[in-house]
Amino acid sequence: MIMANINRAMLRLGQAPSVIRETFEYGNTRAQQIGRENVFDFSLGNPSVPAPERVTDTLRKLLADCPPVALHGYTSAPGDLPTRRAVAEDLCRRFSANLTEANIYMTCGAAASLTCTLHALVQPGDEIVVPAPFFPEYRVFAEAAGAVLVPVPPVPGSFQIDVPALRRHLSEKTKAVIVNSPNNPTGVVYTREVLTELSDALSAFSAQRGSPVYLLSDEPYRELVYDGAEVPYLPALYPATIVCYSYSKSLSLPGERIGYVAVPTSVPDWQEIFAAVCGAGRALGFVCAPSLMQKMIAACTDAACDMATYRLNRDLLYGALTDCGFSCVHPDGAFYLFVRAPGEDAAAFCQKARQFELLLVPSDSFGCPGYVRLAYCVSTDMIRRSLPAFRQLAESYGLI
Amino acid sequence: MIMANINRAMLRLGQAPSVIRETFEYGNTRAQQIGRENVFDFSLGNPSVPAPERVTDTLRKLLADCPPVALHGYTSAPGDLPTRRAVAEDLCRRFSANLTEANIYMTCGAAASLTCTLHALVQPGDEIVVPAPFFPEYRVFAEAAGAVLVPVPPVPGSFQIDVPALRRHLSEKTKAVIVNSPNNPTGVVYTREVLTELSDALSAFSAQRGSPVYLLSDEPYRELVYDGAEVPYLPALYPATIVCYSYSKSLSLPGERIGYVAVPTSVPDWQEIFAAVCGAGRALGFVCAPSLMQKMIAACTDAACDMATYRLNRDLLYGALTDCGFSCVHPDGAFYLFVRAPGEDAAAFCQKARQFELLLVPSDSFGCPGYVRLAYCVSTDMIRRSLPAFRQLAESYGLI
Repeated sequence: MIMANINRAMLRLGQAPSVIRETFEYGNTRAQQIGRENVFDFSLGNPSVPAPERVTDTLRKLLADCPPVALHGYTSAPGDLPTRRAVAEDLCRRFSANLTEANIYMTCGAAASLTCTLHALVQPGDEIVVPAPFFPEYRVFAEAAGAVLVPVPPVPGSFQIDVPALRRHLSEKTKAVIVNSPNNPTGVVYTREVLTELSDALSAFSAQRGSPVYLLSDEPYRELVYDGAEVPYLPALYPATIVCYSYSKSLSLPGERIGYVAVPTSVPDWQEIFAAVCGAGRALGFVCAPSLMQKMIAACTDAACDMATYRLNRDLLYGALTDCGFSCVHPDGAFYLFVRAPGEDAAAFCQKARQFELLLVPSDSFGCPGYVRLAYCVSTDMIRRSLPAFRQLAESYGLI
Repeated sequence: MIMANINRAMLRLGQAPSVIRETFEYGNTRAQQIGRENVFDFSLGNPSVPAPERVTDTLRKLLADCPPVALHGYTSAPGDLPTRRAVAEDLCRRFSANLTEANIYMTCGAAASLTCTLHALVQPGDEIVVPAPFFPEYRVFAEAAGAVLVPVPPVPGSFQIDVPALRRHLSEKTKAVIVNSPNNPTGVVYTREVLTELSDALSAFSAQRGSPVYLLSDEPYRELVYDGAEVPYLPALYPATIVCYSYSKSLSLPGERIGYVAVPTSVPDWQEIFAAVCGAGRALGFVCAPSLMQKMIAACTDAACDMATYRLNRDLLYGALTDCGFSCVHPDGAFYLFVRAPGEDAAAFCQKARQFELLLVPSDSFGCPGYVRLAYCVSTDMIRRSLPAFRQLAESYGLI
């Protein structure tokens, strides 16, 4: 068979959907066979709590009061000025940041924040270092920008960043490090101590090399923390930090594609980098972030989704799984549990789990084999109904 | 000065905004100096008629009736199934097309439709042939995908495609031809005769070469035609046609970023190309098209904006400019006039026009020097007030 004369890399990406999406699709098929209520799908990080009422009210008000030509028209490429201003002011208020609208570029969500920033920074062959485990699409985004992804194993057990190990992975080719805290897939929040150690290591390396390693802080889960866990504001620790944000999780709007890139003035050559982010947005075809959502954000930067449900889900599932003998790091944020696969074979464990209609995601593509990810942004009722299945799964492995 | 060690191409794109954007920004500055009512800004293709009431009503209804988790959640990557189905059915109904949801990939607007399709098709060094004049961002999108843009001069006067000339620009490296009808910047609608001639030329060339030249039909202005001008449905003329669509102009929603790619089954290897488009959307960071807008489209594929205003604007401006002695192709679609610059120096003409507070866009970046583009998607009142200034401009060139 003659293969179509098209881009092979894009074809591969399109033909091999992520294991997360694949599991989710299996769940839909299985639900049609045996009924939705009999499938326990923990595959997808799709928020299960509704957007805050203020978001819905603001959208309704905009549609009622704002003339459609202004409401739905092109915004300037970096975003609507009042929105950029509101985002900057919110960060200043919360983190004593030193930002204005000139530092804020509105995007179509976290993925766009990352692809625009990576395309802005990367020259072919550059390396992007990332502490494992990490969101698998980082590899896709980095490679599409012409970079090589360099994973660094975590501290076993705690899943904090192993800074000495990360230091050994830095090279002349390192353009940036991506950190994601609260972390997908572990739910771990990196501590101030570890992040300070990281900052010191990156500063020393950058000074020695004579050019900065940029730190990309991917923060879609920033607001999703429990028990008052602290998520340090990284630009205050490391000056060359670029923040990639999304409102997908904090405002439960994952389908609407709205977020931002913040390039603080503390980043060396920040104006050139900001311009290059704008250039990347243009080259990739983003034009501007969706205008209605931008205008909503101007009034909702400090809105928050209901964390009580996620917290209840976490406590219920973490408690039940550890009671069954499963081993799992205690998550302080996000809505994921990262469970060790008995026998360290994540794929076999996920297959076995499917016998009990439990849909889990193997950790291999997260750069940390031997685990499974459970997304508990589901209904509390489904979690309750799934517990006997987890117990059977544990029994099948002789854990109880 | 040491230059930042970042991507130079993206920096250049960010530092050199398009001449359209630049003119628009000048207009805003000038409006602050002398009052908005004294500046006649014809720079930007930002629709001036409101979105159809059905669009607003549908958005309101969705916000009132649809649970937020469903309304704002991730859709599947190619789009929400009912939306893709509605788009396919609309095309089947209007053009006797043979499409299902499997052929439709929802995008964040026309720019995204083009970048995803180009990234899906292009291998480094491929050539993308485009009849001039053309939307300047085609060059940006093609180069970002690793291709070389090859412009072909139009038939003088009519601005139809010069098919024999285009034929001479095809090569072993030609991956695709982009056509845009109704055309930005001329407003010309390519005739069925010319498109049939193009199809014959591409078919013969593809057969001889043994691999298809793809035709990308960029159709944001499809619905914006006057006096019943026909816009032939290109897949019916040339089987290897991929349609890149946007609702930006037809529903006056340019800031909302909603459109689609249609890959008909008549395209050789259509399933692989569709997969590669999905792969490109993933690699570039699109995730999915904005979900609220997708759900609105499912109910509004056949809504239409008010063409009476654009038609009035066209007749008023075309009549006045030709009366003044300016030379201009009669536009049958879109909302642009393409006027010959006296002395054939577009930049000098635009500078001279600014003395009369008329903001026009020089045609050089459209691949067709010696003209200016006027976007008449402005208020009819502004056009009326601008007419004395055009008369003075004509007098300064001795045209009257």
